[in-house]
Amino acid sequence: MTDFSAKQSIGRDTRLCMSLSARPGNAGSRLHNTLYGLLGLDFVYKSFSTTDLPAAIGGVRALGIRGCAISMPFKEAVIPLLDGLEDSARAIDSVNTIVNEDGVLTGYNTDYTAVRDLVARRDIDPATPFLLRGSGGMAKAVAAALRDLGFRDGTVIARNAEAGPALAAQYGFRWLPELPEQEAAMLVNVTPIGMEGAQAGELAFTPAQIAACEIAFDVVAQPAETPFIKAALAADKTIISGAEVIVLQAVEQFFLYTGIRPDDEAIAKATAFAHGPAVAQRLRDAA
Amino acid sequence: MTDFSAKQSIGRDTRLCMSLSARPGNAGSRLHNTLYGLLGLDFVYKSFSTTDLPAAIGGVRALGIRGCAISMPFKEAVIPLLDGLEDSARAIDSVNTIVNEDGVLTGYNTDYTAVRDLVARRDIDPATPFLLRGSGGMAKAVAAALRDLGFRDGTVIARNAEAGPALAAQYGFRWLPELPEQEAAMLVNVTPIGMEGAQAGELAFTPAQIAACEIAFDVVAQPAETPFIKAALAADKTIISGAEVIVLQAVEQFFLYTGIRPDDEAIAKATAFAHGPAVAQRLRDAA
Repeated sequence: MTDFSAKQSIGRDTRLCMSLSARPGNAGSRLHNTLYGLLGLDFVYKSFSTTDLPAAIGGVRALGIRGCAISMPFKEAVIPLLDGLEDSARAIDSVNTIVNEDGVLTGYNTDYTAVRDLVARRDIDPATPFLLRGSGGMAKAVAAALRDLGFRDGTVIARNAEAGPALAAQYGFRWLPELPEQEAAMLVNVTPIGMEGAQAGELAFTPAQIAACEIAFDVVAQPAETPFIKAALAADKTIISGAEVIVLQAVEQFFLYTGIRPDDEAIAKATAFAHGPAVAQRLRDAA
Repeated sequence: MTDFSAKQSIGRDTRLCMSLSARPGNAGSRLHNTLYGLLGLDFVYKSFSTTDLPAAIGGVRALGIRGCAISMPFKEAVIPLLDGLEDSARAIDSVNTIVNEDGVLTGYNTDYTAVRDLVARRDIDPATPFLLRGSGGMAKAVAAALRDLGFRDGTVIARNAEAGPALAAQYGFRWLPELPEQEAAMLVNVTPIGMEGAQAGELAFTPAQIAACEIAFDVVAQPAETPFIKAALAADKTIISGAEVIVLQAVEQFFLYTGIRPDDEAIAKATAFAHGPAVAQRLRDAA
């Protein structure tokens, strides 16, 4: 870990892990590469984009790339290119992680696993009623995790008149096209509302709903504190933030690729480098 | 270039270059990664093997991998998978370098270029008679380079009764199946004779031939000094060593991938790390 030897040490035995998405970020490579450095593992991580998913996945297989994170818009499209799905991915027909075992590619969904673990850690009574905004791939992972933890009293709110009711029906929840005035003890945002960009500054739930809730869960990770999370923090609610989901699902990928579970100290250091010290602190507080 | 930041700095904009061969080594990644570090380039280099060349090359294209070195046994097989060949590769129907320009893959042969430049640097009279042992892909690169520099008085020595005469005929040289007793001013070994492994310790030419020659050229790079080169050095002959070929062809690849020609100082440092200080010194002496 001195001078520029980390890159110089890359050789024929170094395993490459990677990500594939339409718009690659840097958080994944920062987190994984920091953990490789801290744990002295002969791995390196690099993010990629592609306009030819089948050829990219063929390359993962042919080059012996050990693991591949899959992001928007490839999570469903990648399924027919794989050799099999593990339960976490099969349950929601969505893959965010590929593990390459000697050319055999298996799809996992660590978003599902991470959400399930984060909710379980808070020891929330499954009888808690919730509102869940969203109907995309990540909403499916969250809905499946809640259902599998025993949550039954849920309402999916999604304008999309096909995906919304389909998602709700699949997991036994109600569906509403628009945010109701109704309050609920748990509020879950799985839309881009509050995300950096077009919907920055917007509030995923009404101030009254936030005031009345006990648990505020936002999967948006950029910014680390969305308006929804900020308002909930100000009112001293229990928080599950998108940054926690992102870090926990990445740590789960790390385990699938390397077989090693980093300790909290290493995760905190890597999180601080990848997402900033505030997120690392939140993660430690929540652990 | 401090602590383990070199690997940590890998992100979405980092360009990957790689190599593909049946038995990947570490010299290429050491040389390229050291040069990236010295020159502050946002590149990373990794060697790979594959059992599925078409899928591997499809992956290079689909993942936007900037450059790919091609070694045994893929140098000819890769040609139909590319979009075009540059002159250096077309001249000998052999590719050791792929450059990826927005998904368009062009094949080059930097072995040819390196050999041509190394021989040209020695200012050898093209009327010099030579013996060349070998008839494989690298022998073709050497024969083509010599022919293109104006050498005409050459004998190709190769037991292979198809490849040997074909190579000799293609470049206008004579062919002999076995090493003759005849002497020649330039001796060129392009076989594995003297290489680490099964043929270690063997001499590519007779002691009498070595004593009588002026220029000794061995493409074998491992060890840096083969018995042939050792004997020629002891007799104070002009030397062209395999390590020089390997480094010069890699520097040529580096230029094709990055657009940058490293200076002699940087090349010496990278060579010392990749091949040892003795090879770096030889290269500086020869420059």
